[in-house]
Formats: sequence, structure tokens, C-alpha cells
Amino acid sequence: MISFESDYTTGTHPKILQRLMETNREVLPGYGNDVYCDAARRKIREACGCPEADVFFLVGGTQTNSVVISSMLREYEGVIAAKTGHVSLHEAGAVEITGHKVLEIDQVDGKLEASSVKRFIEQFYQDENHEHMVFPGMVYLSYPTEYGTLYTKKELTEIAEVCRQYEIPLFLDGARLGYGLMSQGADLSLKDIARLCDVFYIGGTKVGALCGEAVVFAKNYSPKHFVNHMKRHGALMAKGRVLGIQFDTLFTDGLYFEISSHAIEMAEKMKDIFKKKGYRFYLESPTNQQFFIVENEKLEKLKEKVRFGFWEKYDEAHTVVRFATSWSTTEEDLKWLEEIL
Amino acid sequence: MISFESDYTTGTHPKILQRLMETNREVLPGYGNDVYCDAARRKIREACGCPEADVFFLVGGTQTNSVVISSMLREYEGVIAAKTGHVSLHEAGAVEITGHKVLEIDQVDGKLEASSVKRFIEQFYQDENHEHMVFPGMVYLSYPTEYGTLYTKKELTEIAEVCRQYEIPLFLDGARLGYGLMSQGADLSLKDIARLCDVFYIGGTKVGALCGEAVVFAKNYSPKHFVNHMKRHGALMAKGRVLGIQFDTLFTDGLYFEISSHAIEMAEKMKDIFKKKGYRFYLESPTNQQFFIVENEKLEKLKEKVRFGFWEKYDEAHTVVRFATSWSTTEEDLKWLEEIL
Amino acid sequence: MISFESDYTTGTHPKILQRLMETNREVLPGYGNDVYCDAARRKIREACGCPEADVFFLVGGTQTNSVVISSMLREYEGVIAAKTGHVSLHEAGAVEITGHKVLEIDQVDGKLEASSVKRFIEQFYQDENHEHMVFPGMVYLSYPTEYGTLYTKKELTEIAEVCRQYEIPLFLDGARLGYGLMSQGADLSLKDIARLCDVFYIGGTKVGALCGEAVVFAKNYSPKHFVNHMKRHGALMAKGRVLGIQFDTLFTDGLYFEISSHAIEMAEKMKDIFKKKGYRFYLESPTNQQFFIVENEKLEKLKEKVRFGFWEKYDEAHTVVRFATSWSTTEEDLKWLEEIL
Amino acid sequence: MISFESDYTTGTHPKILQRLMETNREVLPGYGNDVYCDAARRKIREACGCPEADVFFLVGGTQTNSVVISSMLREYEGVIAAKTGHVSLHEAGAVEITGHKVLEIDQVDGKLEASSVKRFIEQFYQDENHEHMVFPGMVYLSYPTEYGTLYTKKELTEIAEVCRQYEIPLFLDGARLGYGLMSQGADLSLKDIARLCDVFYIGGTKVGALCGEAVVFAKNYSPKHFVNHMKRHGALMAKGRVLGIQFDTLFTDGLYFEISSHAIEMAEKMKDIFKKKGYRFYLESPTNQQFFIVENEKLEKLKEKVRFGFWEKYDEAHTVVRFATSWSTTEEDLKWLEEIL
Repeated sequence: MISFESDYTTGTHPKILQRLMETNREVLPGYGNDVYCDAARRKIREACGCPEADVFFLVGGTQTNSVVISSMLREYEGVIAAKTGHVSLHEAGAVEITGHKVLEIDQVDGKLEASSVKRFIEQFYQDENHEHMVFPGMVYLSYPTEYGTLYTKKELTEIAEVCRQYEIPLFLDGARLGYGLMSQGADLSLKDIARLCDVFYIGGTKVGALCGEAVVFAKNYSPKHFVNHMKRHGALMAKGRVLGIQFDTLFTDGLYFEISSHAIEMAEKMKDIFKKKGYRFYLESPTNQQFFIVENEKLEKLKEKVRFGFWEKYDEAHTVVRFATSWSTTEEDLKWLEEIL
Repeated sequence: MISFESDYTTGTHPKILQRLMETNREVLPGYGNDVYCDAARRKIREACGCPEADVFFLVGGTQTNSVVISSMLREYEGVIAAKTGHVSLHEAGAVEITGHKVLEIDQVDGKLEASSVKRFIEQFYQDENHEHMVFPGMVYLSYPTEYGTLYTKKELTEIAEVCRQYEIPLFLDGARLGYGLMSQGADLSLKDIARLCDVFYIGGTKVGALCGEAVVFAKNYSPKHFVNHMKRHGALMAKGRVLGIQFDTLFTDGLYFEISSHAIEMAEKMKDIFKKKGYRFYLESPTNQQFFIVENEKLEKLKEKVRFGFWEKYDEAHTVVRFATSWSTTEEDLKWLEEIL
Repeated sequence: MISFESDYTTGTHPKILQRLMETNREVLPGYGNDVYCDAARRKIREACGCPEADVFFLVGGTQTNSVVISSMLREYEGVIAAKTGHVSLHEAGAVEITGHKVLEIDQVDGKLEASSVKRFIEQFYQDENHEHMVFPGMVYLSYPTEYGTLYTKKELTEIAEVCRQYEIPLFLDGARLGYGLMSQGADLSLKDIARLCDVFYIGGTKVGALCGEAVVFAKNYSPKHFVNHMKRHGALMAKGRVLGIQFDTLFTDGLYFEISSHAIEMAEKMKDIFKKKGYRFYLESPTNQQFFIVENEKLEKLKEKVRFGFWEKYDEAHTVVRFATSWSTTEEDLKWLEEIL
Repeated sequence: MISFESDYTTGTHPKILQRLMETNREVLPGYGNDVYCDAARRKIREACGCPEADVFFLVGGTQTNSVVISSMLREYEGVIAAKTGHVSLHEAGAVEITGHKVLEIDQVDGKLEASSVKRFIEQFYQDENHEHMVFPGMVYLSYPTEYGTLYTKKELTEIAEVCRQYEIPLFLDGARLGYGLMSQGADLSLKDIARLCDVFYIGGTKVGALCGEAVVFAKNYSPKHFVNHMKRHGALMAKGRVLGIQFDTLFTDGLYFEISSHAIEMAEKMKDIFKKKGYRFYLESPTNQQFFIVENEKLEKLKEKVRFGFWEKYDEAHTVVRFATSWSTTEEDLKWLEEIL
């Protein structure tokens, strides 16, 4: 059976496996102090246009969000996020476990709006009782969002300006960053993101790695002793080489972007197939995740032949489903899909 | 200047002060193990119709919410509350500091609806990814609510039934409990509340005490070693007598209810004055807190002669203000108020 | 039965009760913003010789330790304390609940030694793996200690110097501060303590108040938004007046020192009685807590006539007991004690 | 340069890499729900003689300790551990971050003694103030210990009996479990450990895997919704296959034991070399970590030719160093070492 269930259902890009094999016998120091981590850091800094950036490698997305957010917030602060944000809904309280509140605000197609963020912060400071409330201490957003949508350069710039005005950092969750950067409609480059955000991470797990996320503190805002933060959250890998080698490979000869482009190309073709077959789109997503509205009856039949994700109930008779592409999606997969539909 | 700013701007009921004086020289054990705490517990159990209930005395409301909620939730659970709930907005993250999320849901006039609670829990369990989400582990509500409104017996019963169905405790924040119980429209007695809720607290601070809240675990649901929970949250008073003597006095000869009735009577008279003077009510509150819509211009003049609380902006030209009565509000205060208005 | 069980078994100094009565009807703002809190702050600053100090009022000792320590530590830091320190043993993990480790080191008669503190910090930084360890971020000590012993000016100065050298704050727990300051052998004044420590608290609960501890941030080291820290720990009293009035009274006409001197005088007389009766002292305490070694057989008889504290087993046949004096100890109590012994 | 620095300086056993390659294209569900995780669980249960055991895969040791301990302790409990235990010293406060205290007690050669554990718990319950203390809620120990030493079956049985008596779980940290099981002197089998402990983990990272630890809840003591605990601690790997495939391989045809035996054999040969060369042993370790006392002068020379770990200062002129073997240590490495020494 073919699968479009998510972008983490297959292993890793062959080049990564190959590098793991080639370096397997090398004796290397642990905890991210090896030459591959160093090389990966160097290449990432260059790709971001931030020669001074601090770069750290963690294992997974929830872990990364929890460690970054808790290390950057003051004790009395919370993080502003969309109600549909990953940290709001799907991380089982990994921010709250660190003692911090997620300050959930409204979103449009999964995106925060600068005006909403600004209004929220202003109202906070205008409230006479704000000493009895959680201080807004950071803005968290995803690029692409949970819905596969993208901020424009203008939108992200406006949000960054609100953050600068109130002197709170802007954190961009890039679990699927590559798919955003390589999207046909995107006008944000990696350098733009590094310039606009205080911290962000380049997702590996969902973009062709076995695991791993690269956190980039683009500005002079890196929390003191961040390695210690990682360690106490159980996020410091002993064989850090596993992460270093993967990111070194991903940022050699543009592999990260190549993988992402491939998935976007597959997604665009998949969109065409769904369009041709007369399916309704739940929303217009320019990235590797596509959301369709399917009749429940049809759904049951589809499930027998292809795997995909259930998103939410649309109405009594319809369901929203998610189809995702990845490094391993092939033209053949798409042909099969077309036949099935 | 007269003040209707809140119900905690004056000291304590004279009978409490008198008892503190009479008992001052007595040698008593600390940490709530004295005869006055015991007597207060006995009288509260009787008033609640719960001979088996566990009763504990804490100092303030935020502290009580934080200790009760964190001691009853499992690590992976959060507490359902109204978006406007005290724990959601005005406790500076005192629930999150314990590692738990406040699961905020919509409210009507400050009240949770059984149907919303049920829908929230059902959707949680229907979600295929609920292992990646915060489990709903408790329902929190206030009686009266932040807006001075009251649940009917029917409404509270329905919410309690949802809690029973999903086997999660129902916690009632009674910071202003007396004002609810003595409200003219209320159909819930203290015994009803003890029967319907798993845990609740009888507020002292806002009902005539210097400080103190009495937590009642009405059912066989009291967390093991609750005193230890209190201690580690810094909520165990060394001179526990201070709380015991106050609650013993409040529950002797019905003082708690007398104080509450007095404030309600004053509030009803105050309502009449505002009505007579043509003021608009923001909502219909049957308790000691009243909310009026006042023109901003008029507001400035009022502020020179009487203290009251600012609630929120109504529109460009109007503001919602709060006037509260308490044990110490007098007929004279009301006469002054009438003249000023 | 007479009692020397502890210094918090009776109510409060009559002057405090009197002031509570006199001010009871006054309308005052909540949360520590009233004129009595302000007056108390002013008088405490003056007594400390710190016109710039920030002063906050909390309810109890464990709460104060937890809030002060967690608000001053960075996320990855712990607090150095004696193994026998109150935060190490008797606060049920109130520091750990905030996510921080108590770094327990050896003590002598309840006291930290500057050399031990220095050695601990040096070894930490020499350890190649210190990024995998909890950073020493603060030194906590009590004055008097759990054993009623006192640091000399020289000893406290040396510890303060170690703290300055490593740029970590020194926190002095003064739950029984008055008894230390008024001890006959003490060479540390309140001004010395304010000069040497970054933060300390002046204990009220155990020195004649109903409750309350005054935290003094003597230097420019006061954590941002400390009131918010208090609030989220449930440590911000709604009727802050209760604390303000007490500390205003304690620091008017030297009442705090008078109460403390009285207890010390009673303790010295008590020591003489025990000496005369041939009792062995467990250690030499110059403060209001005295520790004696009593035969177990004798203990049983004593218990029928006088209350005191059990400290620890001394050997199979003997027990260490604690006798404490307070504001309410009288000459008559001592006469009775002499007869009993 | 050859290296005996630690057991995690090389990659992974070739068979693991091979399996990762073979399975790379397979479409598998995430989060540990794949067939390889299932197979690994089945094989581990069988190897442990626990057909009912719950088995979970996490990424690293500190993470595993933090998640297991916090999920099994009640809020008011701490975990008993040796002062030299990994959770006490070298995890940067990863237990405290979850709100729990590590109750550190004395050790002998890195090992807890049943009598010390029993005494600690007894003294706790005898203390009149134990409601003001952290409850002992679990015993943590490592097998092998930090010093490479091993508990005998008798010793572990005695500790387990103390745990049963006080109804607290026994948790065995098996980061290097294989090296203990395959040690020549060991009399504990994997089945013994599963029978005596309530929970333990089988370390992968330090025994030939790229990463991964397999937690085994041997008894009916597995915390409810453990996957949710993992998720909220950021310890749930999206591509759980990475862990499943590794453990499936390690527990196929006894590879885990083969790897461990190899390292032990190499360690025994290394011991002989050091003995022959007249080196002093710091303590008698029967596992893959060996500790030698070396003159500081000699140390400098050694460092130029071989990598090893610094353990601690022995005296002014000597240092304790650690030499570790692993899956990748070869006879050739040992020959080189002999020449160098």
C-alpha cells in the first residue's frame, strides 16, 4: 500500500545513511563536540548568512520547542502562540511542564497576525492588574504552519517589528522549514528568516533525516549555558555525531533544499491530480501538506488502498484529510494515487 | 472618601478580632493541629452535611487553587476552566508553575456550560492524536464567577454529571462563596455544593476574614499527604491558629452567612440606587459585585468622590466599572453614594 | 501546662493586635500597596541602613525561601546550603518544586564555612564535565541556624567574599533574625547583614507576629517583577495590610528588638537553670533555642509537666531536646520550669 | 591515536547500520508503533522472562531517568540515590526540573547498601516532622555503577526487599547493563533483574547502538499513559523506527550480549596489561570501565598517545583515570596500548 500519511514514515535520505557508514569507526568526542557537528554548524551559519550565530543540535521538535522556550523566557513570562500552534495543542504540555503558560491567541489559516499580537501585548500592559497576569515574553510561530500555510516576508517582518518594539524574542518553529523555503509562492529566504527571527530551528526529522533539529540563535540572544539547558531537559545526545553527520550532509551541496524541492514538486503534482479528480481543497497550501475534503463514504474505500492522515470532521458527511509528500515520494506513488482516486 | 472598590479593602469582622484577642496567650500547636482548627473543621463539616470531609486551611485564593489543582491532577493532565476564569487569567500562571496546563474553553456570562465541557472532553478522546495532547483531568469553576453570576442547581448538576461520566473531579472556587449562597436568586445550598463537587473552598479573605480559605474535600478523593503538598507549596501556616480561630468564628452562630447576607442586602440597595439614577447594567449579577456601564466623562468626576474598580473598556465613550459590597459596607455609605451619583 | 516547645505557640505581641484593631475599618488598597506597608518598608530600610532597598512582605518562611531562591536563580542553577539547612531538610522540597536543586554541603554546628563553599565552587568549575552538572548559583544560610548558632562578622564576611568572587548572591534566612541580633555574643548588626548579603528576610512569625516575613533586597539585585513572582507562587496576600501593619508596629520604637531581647534574656535565665540542675548542653547556643541532652527516663516524666521539642536521638539512653523562648515567655514560666526540673 | 576515553566514541555495531539500510524505504507508522518496535518489545520481554512487561524506547539516559522517575513518583516524593549516582551529580538537575528531590545517601564503591536505604527510610518515618520533609518514593541505582562495580544477587535482593517492605519501586539504571550482565564475576541475570526491579532500562547508547534506551516496566507498575509522559518531556521520537530497529537487532541472535562480552573480554585483557606494567588500580571493577592511579608526570606523556577519561585527583602527585572498552575495541588497540604503557 502506498502512503501519504506524513513526512516521517520512511527512513532517511540515502546520502545520510552513506555518511553514517563511512564515519562509523571514527573515534569522536561526545555531546556535540565532534568535527561533524562543527562542520554542520559552519555550513548552517553560512547558509543563514549569520557568521556569529550559535547553532545547537537536538533530537526532536517537541523537545526543541520546550528547551528553547523555557531557556529564553523569564520565570514570570509566557509564550504567545496561535491557538492551533503545535505548542498549544500537540505537545502534551511540554511548555507547561517547564512552568510557563502558552498564551493562545486567534489565528487565520494557522497564522498569527501582527495586529493580533500587538493588540494582545498592548491590552496586557494596559490592564491595571497585569502584575497578576502572565507576561508576554516571546512570540512562537511555525513556518510552514500546522496547515501548511506560509507567512509572507511582509507578514513576518510586521510580527518581528512588534517583537522588537516590546523587546521580546521571535521564535520560528521550522520543523518543516525546507518545504516552506522551497515552496513556489514563498518570498522568504533562509537569510530573511535569520535576519527577522531571534531564534529558529531547521527541522531535520521531517525533511529527510532520521532525527534532529538544528537550533539557530541568529542574534546575540543565545541563553547562557544552553548546553546545560539541553542536558537538564534530557536533550543532549551522547553520540552527538549522529546529529552532526546528518546536518553536515544535509547542508553539503544543498541536499536540504534538494530534498525539500523534491517534496514540493511531488505535492504540486499531487494537487493537480486531486484538482483533476474534482476534489475540494480545505485550504490553499503551498507546501508539502495538502488538505482535502472527502465524503465519508469515499474515505472508507480510499483507506483500503492508500494511507493518509485524518485531520478533522468537516461536517456530518465529510472529513478533512491530510496528504503529505517527502524525500521518498516517487512519481510512481503519484501514478498509483491517480489510479486509486 | 467612600469605597466600593472590592470586598477586601477593610480589615475583618469585629468578632474575629475579638476572638484573636481572647485566645492570644493560649499555647497551641502549630501547622493546623490546634483546637480551633479542629473546631472549625467540625463546624464546616456539619454545615456542609459531610461528616467525613477532609478540611484544610490555606492563606489565599491563588495559593489554594494552585495547591488543590496540582495535588489532584496526574502529571499528564490539565484543568478545564473558563477563558475568563481566575486561574486562566489572573493568577500569573500559578497553575502552569506546577507543570499543568489550563485548558481554556468558552463561557457564557463567566459560566461554563455542561455541553461545552462535554464536547471538549469528547473531542479530546475522539482525536486520534490525544496521546500527544494534555488530558482533561479536572473541571474548575467559580461560584460566584468573576462576573458575579451564579450557576443554578440544574447547571451545576449537569456539569457534575459530565465529570462523573469521565471520572474527573469537579473543583469549585468559592473565594466569594458566601455571596453566592446568600444571593436572593440562588437555589444552591452549601450542602448541594458539597454533594455535587469533589472539592471546593470556602473563601474567607473576601468574606470578612483577615485571610484564609477552607478547602473541603467532600468525597473520598482527598489527595494523600495533602499537608505535605501544602508545605512544599509554602502554603502551610506555622501559626495555623490564625486560620482556625477565624473559621471557627465564621462558622459559629452563622456569622459567615450573616456577613454574606449583609453584603447582598447592601448590593441590592446599591442596585436600586443605580437603577433609579438611570445607569446601565453590564450584566445581571445577583451577588455582591455589580457591573455598570458609565460614560468616560462621568467616570472622571465619580473618581474624585468614590473608589471603585475598573473592569474593562465598553466602547470608545464608555467603561465597565465594578462596585462591590462587603461585611463593612454601611447604609451610610449607600446614602453617600446616592448623593454622589 | 507550660510550654517551651517553640517560638510560635502563642499569638502575637499585644501592640500588634492593638494596631490591627485601630486600623480595622480603614479602607486600604490590597496586595501590599497600602500606607502601612509603605511605612513598614520605610522603617525597615532605615533600620537596615539601605535607603534604596526593595522590601516585600510574604506570609511564611518556606514560602519566602522558595520564592526568593527561584526568582534569583537562573534555570540551570542550584542553591548551596548546609545539609542541615531548613531548605535542605524541612521544607518538603519547596525549592525542588521550582525546578532547582539544593546543593547540600557539610556544616559545622549548623554553619557553612567559607572554605567549604569556596572549595565546592572551585571543584565545580574544575570539573571537566561541569556543563553536565547543576551550577552553583546562590548561597543560602540561616542566622541564627537551625541549631541556634550564629555566624560571626568575620565568618559572614568571608562567605560574602566568596560569593562576590564568583558573582553569586548571598541569601540569609532570618526566620529568627531578631534572636540573633539581640544575642549577647553577636557582633553582627542589622546594617552589617544588609551590607554583606544580597538578600535576606526579617522573620516575623517566630518573632512575635501572627505571620509575615519581610524580604529585603539590599543591593541592586532585586528580581524584575518580584510581585509577579510572589503572585504566581500564591505568596501575594490580598489584604497585604495584615503584613504591613504588623511590620510597621514591629519597627516602631524598636519593638522587634525589644521582643527579641526579651526572649534572649529569658533564654539566658533558662540556661542558668539547666546548668544549675546539672543538665548537659548538646551545643552552645547563644540564642532563644537551647538544646539539652536528657535521659530517656527523665524525659517521660518531664513530658507530663512541660512541653518542649524533640530534636534527635543522642544515644540509646539519651535524647536531645529543644527548649525555646519567645515574646510571651515569662519569669513565672521559668520559675515553674525550675521547680519541674 | 587510539582511544579508551569512553564507550560512546565510535558509531554503532555494523549489524545495526545494515538493518537501518535494509529497512530504510519501508513505510512505517511513527512514535514507536511500527513492527520493529513491536518485535523488539517481544524479544526484550522474552529475554527478561516477563511476558507481561511494558517496554518503551527513549533516546538517551538522562532523558530516561528523568521521565521514568517523574512518572513514577507522587508529587511529594523524592528518589533515593547514591551521592555519586548519575542522577545526583551528572544530569544537570534533570530530576529536580520535574519538581522532585534526589535524596542522596552514602555509598560504598558506588553502590547503595540495603541497610543504608532501610535506615534512611526508617529515620524518615520516625521523624515527628516528616510531613515537612520529602517522602522517599523510589530507590534508584545503577548496574554497573558509575565506578564500574556490580551488585551481587544477594545485595540487590536485599535492596528489593526494603523497597517491597516500604512499598516503593526499585529502579535500575542500566545505561551499561550489558557490561554488568556479561562480567565474569556477575551472578545476576537479566531475568533476575526483571524479577527484582519494578522498572529498569537496557542501555543502547553505551552498548553499541547509535542511541536508545529500552525501559522495561517488569511488574504491574507501569505509569498510566506513559507515552504521554514521554511526549510532554520531549522524549517521544517521531521516527520511532530508529530505536525499534536498533533494539530489534540487538536482541536478535544475542547481539546485545555478544557486544557486551566482547567489551568485557577486552577489558580483562586491558587489566592484565596494566597489572603487568605495574599500575595501581583505584578500585576493583569487573566491567568495561577500569580506573587506574597514574603519576601526573606520566599522565602528560600518555595523553600524547592515547585518549582516556580523567576521573578525579587522587593526591597531589597522582590522578585517577578511566579506560573504557566497547563494541569497537580491537586486539590491535590493546597491542598499541601495551606498547605505549
